[in-house]
Amino acid sequence: MTSTGKKHISRCAIAFALDAFGDRWSLLVIRDLLLRGNKTYGEFLDSGEGIATNVLADRLKNLETAGIIKKSKDSNNRRKNIYELTEKGLDLTPVILEIIRWSAHYDPQTSAARETLQRIENDRDGLIEDLRSGVSTG
Amino acid sequence: MTSTGKKHISRCAIAFALDAFGDRWSLLVIRDLLLRGNKTYGEFLDSGEGIATNVLADRLKNLETAGIIKKSKDSNNRRKNIYELTEKGLDLTPVILEIIRWSAHYDPQTSAARETLQRIENDRDGLIEDLRSGVSTG
Repeated sequence: MTSTGKKHISRCAIAFALDAFGDRWSLLVIRDLLLRGNKTYGEFLDSGEGIATNVLADRLKNLETAGIIKKSKDSNNRRKNIYELTEKGLDLTPVILEIIRWSAHYDPQTSAARETLQRIENDRDGLIEDLRSGVSTG
Repeated sequence: MTSTGKKHISRCAIAFALDAFGDRWSLLVIRDLLLRGNKTYGEFLDSGEGIATNVLADRLKNLETAGIIKKSKDSNNRRKNIYELTEKGLDLTPVILEIIRWSAHYDPQTSAARETLQRIENDRDGLIEDLRSGVSTG
């Protein structure tokens, strides 16, 4: 298994995914985009886990190379970049939801919203639709 | 966010999961246990991605501390350890399946078995049951 962009030794599906987003910071950026509506470099930096600026820049570049996020100019401020998930990135929503479900089950102090957890159980498809279209899910 | 066993700054469900299994090698060990029936240190080492012995030892220890795997003595050879997923580890099956689904969709050269992919779409619950009980899924 190799890092993003290098030749795969294995074509295992898990290894492929890990090449694309398999480090903690990448997955937290995907979380920020999908669940928190964060879109800018500054918002990712302030997201609470203390990512270093150089690490964040590196992960954003990798995620863009992997086709999971795309970058555009903020129409109100051309010097600012706006990041969003591509279709390929949005297709990771079920992965994120299964991770949340598992964590909420095993972490008694989870901060996952009860409404989100209930919808994962009872309205999974509707929740995925809302997340994909950027509707706030509380 | 901190590493396994340390105090969490955030109780985010994604961060909690990343603390427990969020590095590439840990997830590959979970894959080996769940999908390949690998059970021993030697089998993990030979799994094709070239994990270093010290990294493997460290990840097995972390996964055990996180309660995701458990270790016992091989009844045929008391010097050999057998690893298996705990209930908490087996509960990661849906996460693994969603990762496989995503990768198979986006990697034209995926090695994921067609039968597995079809079952993810058409018989997800049955596949999860088979994987949890150690039935070979082809």
